[in-house]
Amino acid sequence: MREKAQVREVGPRDGIQMVKTILTTEQKLKWVREEAAAGAKYFEATSFVPPKVIAQFADAPDVATGVLDIPGIEAAALVPNLKGAQRAFDIGCAKVNYVLSASEAHNQSNVRRSTDESLQGFRDIMAEHSARGLKGKVVIGAAIATSFGCTIQGHVSEKRVVEIAVELAKAGADEISLADTVGYGNPAQIRRLFTDVTKAVGKIPLAAHFHDTRGLGIANVSAAVEAGVRRFDASLAGLGGCPFAPGATGNIATEDCVFLLEELGFDTGIDIDKLIPLRKEVESWLPGERFFGMVARAGLPKTYRATQQAA
Amino acid sequence: MREKAQVREVGPRDGIQMVKTILTTEQKLKWVREEAAAGAKYFEATSFVPPKVIAQFADAPDVATGVLDIPGIEAAALVPNLKGAQRAFDIGCAKVNYVLSASEAHNQSNVRRSTDESLQGFRDIMAEHSARGLKGKVVIGAAIATSFGCTIQGHVSEKRVVEIAVELAKAGADEISLADTVGYGNPAQIRRLFTDVTKAVGKIPLAAHFHDTRGLGIANVSAAVEAGVRRFDASLAGLGGCPFAPGATGNIATEDCVFLLEELGFDTGIDIDKLIPLRKEVESWLPGERFFGMVARAGLPKTYRATQQAA
Repeated sequence: MREKAQVREVGPRDGIQMVKTILTTEQKLKWVREEAAAGAKYFEATSFVPPKVIAQFADAPDVATGVLDIPGIEAAALVPNLKGAQRAFDIGCAKVNYVLSASEAHNQSNVRRSTDESLQGFRDIMAEHSARGLKGKVVIGAAIATSFGCTIQGHVSEKRVVEIAVELAKAGADEISLADTVGYGNPAQIRRLFTDVTKAVGKIPLAAHFHDTRGLGIANVSAAVEAGVRRFDASLAGLGGCPFAPGATGNIATEDCVFLLEELGFDTGIDIDKLIPLRKEVESWLPGERFFGMVARAGLPKTYRATQQAA
Repeated sequence: MREKAQVREVGPRDGIQMVKTILTTEQKLKWVREEAAAGAKYFEATSFVPPKVIAQFADAPDVATGVLDIPGIEAAALVPNLKGAQRAFDIGCAKVNYVLSASEAHNQSNVRRSTDESLQGFRDIMAEHSARGLKGKVVIGAAIATSFGCTIQGHVSEKRVVEIAVELAKAGADEISLADTVGYGNPAQIRRLFTDVTKAVGKIPLAAHFHDTRGLGIANVSAAVEAGVRRFDASLAGLGGCPFAPGATGNIATEDCVFLLEELGFDTGIDIDKLIPLRKEVESWLPGERFFGMVARAGLPKTYRATQQAA
């Protein structure tokens, strides 16, 4: 029995928030449906940001409703505030992901509030979650954006990231993600900060959200694995980016992340060979975009999943 | 004082052995000269394979002679056999790199000999090296290709790689490289095999030669660093590949490798900002090729080299 690791497809959310094409609701649902058929179980399917901020998510309620019909998956909706969470709760989303930023500058740019105000926003969401009796029914994830640095403010204090994680834990988060929103993280820093946050928050599962802006994305996954992390966001074809973080580029590619984790001996449940045709279809929907990831081009090695065996 | 790490530019050898364009001798020398001006000290500048095998290296004697005029660098020539080594010794190359393959199938494809015959070839080179009184004057590197798997034969025995390394050490190699010729290696395997080889060969410095075929190249560098490796081959723009290993693609990109090592706290001596214009020039020489590496596209973070500092 191999240990399980989660690769969470965030393409239908992070992956398409900066692309030029607005996908149809049916395309977004098809993406989730076909990736689920390839074995993916975890998704961030849409975002309840106001459509005037990101037009791509004007159909968020339809996508969030549509994914409820796909069996065997846990589909999350990203929410920037209480109102977004209420909409997600109303629909019955399996998971709600809240995001705030460790960088004050990025948090202001992203949601026009201080990080402390955003922390209070999370407490308000948790109060609503309790009041509605959703504890143990709707999973709440909390993500700390720009945990490893910020293109606006530069350095981000690791101590501050730990403090924020502790506050999110106290407020009742079921999971805490550290996000390298702009690809500033390196393996040593990843190992150190995930270790420190683990010590500070105890048993709450940690997740990693990495962008491959400067080529270290997969190295950072490997480092996070060493620090005990087993949950990773990724986007098919390495799509993605943050419209409020200058210079942000794509998430780590789902295909390459799955490849790494399987080669490290983990069971992701995902069949890479089935991701490749889906990737091609998604590419065909998004003319003029850049696509990343190496496995889709090179194919799997003859020795795939066998390298852990004895020499 | 930061610990030093070597990034060795292999672009003028591995990087161009599969490209469609034959570079001029002056272009190859300009590449080395300008990268030396960016702080690079270590190069694999050419290959003494027969020109009928790889036409790109018909000017190997001229390149090997030309680099002797570039101050402050150690430029190696790759040699496939004793005859190649004799030519390199005649010219006065600072370093001679011999390569043999842990995969019998790849060794046959590459040099039409068994791995044991190639080991004997290395002993013959070392005898010549001694006979000419070059001990302590000309550095001899020995590289074990397909150390982590082979596109022809598939699995490669780790025990066999250790055995070969021990034989190379006994024969007097000044350095032993483990090469992931076809991008089959993963971080766990890298950590394990470099650790095992270190135990077996003692104090001889180990080097890593990784290709980024399936996206794990930089993660593998990070893993090798953990195993104590401080010498890494890389190619500007991620060029490269082996004509005798089906499916082989580019080396890890020099820019990204330097970025990782500097972010991990090492001193490579290389100024990434000076690599970018050189990369553009090399790209202009090689129409129709694919270029890789993320740092050249995204630029350096605001926090470059500062991420190791206290939180």
